[in-house]
Amino acid sequence: MYILYVMVRYPKHLLQLIEALKRLPGVGNKSAERFVFQMLEWKKEYLYELARLIDQTPDRIKVCQECGCLAGEEACLFCSERRSDQGVLCLVASPKDVFAFEETGEYKGLYHVLGTLLSPLEGKGIDQIPLRKIIERIEKYQIREIVMALDSTLEGDATALYLKRELQEHAKYLPYTLRISRLALGLPMGSSLDYVDGGTLARAFSGRLSMD
Amino acid sequence: MYILYVMVRYPKHLLQLIEALKRLPGVGNKSAERFVFQMLEWKKEYLYELARLIDQTPDRIKVCQECGCLAGEEACLFCSERRSDQGVLCLVASPKDVFAFEETGEYKGLYHVLGTLLSPLEGKGIDQIPLRKIIERIEKYQIREIVMALDSTLEGDATALYLKRELQEHAKYLPYTLRISRLALGLPMGSSLDYVDGGTLARAFSGRLSMD
Repeated sequence: MYILYVMVRYPKHLLQLIEALKRLPGVGNKSAERFVFQMLEWKKEYLYELARLIDQTPDRIKVCQECGCLAGEEACLFCSERRSDQGVLCLVASPKDVFAFEETGEYKGLYHVLGTLLSPLEGKGIDQIPLRKIIERIEKYQIREIVMALDSTLEGDATALYLKRELQEHAKYLPYTLRISRLALGLPMGSSLDYVDGGTLARAFSGRLSMD
Repeated sequence: MYILYVMVRYPKHLLQLIEALKRLPGVGNKSAERFVFQMLEWKKEYLYELARLIDQTPDRIKVCQECGCLAGEEACLFCSERRSDQGVLCLVASPKDVFAFEETGEYKGLYHVLGTLLSPLEGKGIDQIPLRKIIERIEKYQIREIVMALDSTLEGDATALYLKRELQEHAKYLPYTLRISRLALGLPMGSSLDYVDGGTLARAFSGRLSMD
């Protein structure tokens, strides 16, 4: 169905605000309009507070030079405390993946944020992967295991393969054995076989576990 | 199902920004987090622009003293131009209703925004309905017809009833007949009878139209 969107003659300021809000993910015209009309009913202080927080974000949120995680004004949460499992280093693509892991409450090791995945089409080559820094941290913390927690996509797989090769090469010079692992592929929790794609099903089958 | 929301240890600034964004309608923890992580990838200028627009909103957006519609820095869009049907005055509850009407492209008359509906429980009584102003405008524009375009709720119906009585009383002193109408009640366009509630169906039946 073709929907004609009639341009409503909002005051100019509202139009600009709507356009700016539409840059948020999943926010189209209708949602942005709802946001704006709600904002007009807010106390002024709420508006000023939100504006101030957005304005300060570039100054207040930094990337930790050591591990690549997000850090506030306070020191990086993941570098400043002693993690209970300092011998494991988890490689992730972006800072938000770190919080996804933290949310599970299962992982207690260290993180390293790559910042990007290999993607020749987007001009992202191996020079943008912080290999040198990862090797430094392996030596500093005497890391026993590297966990690749990258997307299960072409870019994620290519990056994991590249890092595995480089890190295995480096591991030869370590006085102990470095284990390199990646996340399991299989059925998502609570999923029904009907809705799982063939590739996932094949990986889940080949990676099947004994039930004893 | 009970979902335990594990508190993720974001930097303090991000937590504050997430809380502020959650005041938007339909935005919970997950959406606010997505917004924030998207914002972190924006160019700084986009952040500053959004912050500035939100910050300026209370100064730039005013309520027109004449009709109650939203007005920007420019004069009220609905008072400053000559409407093609100046004899009809449509009464709506909030400024966004005006834009909903404008979007239909059908209505060419004047608007008056009440700003509130009668709601004794919320402390909103008849002293908050701008009756005096509406009567002034009826006289100024020699309004022939008042259209009540209020919500089909207890509050909307009570407000329409109160206004109808008061305006009919006033209409006795006018040198012409003032027509008072309200929006039709019936089936929404494209609706299936299965999904229409009994009250709506009954109103649609009693308001049935001859098909010639």
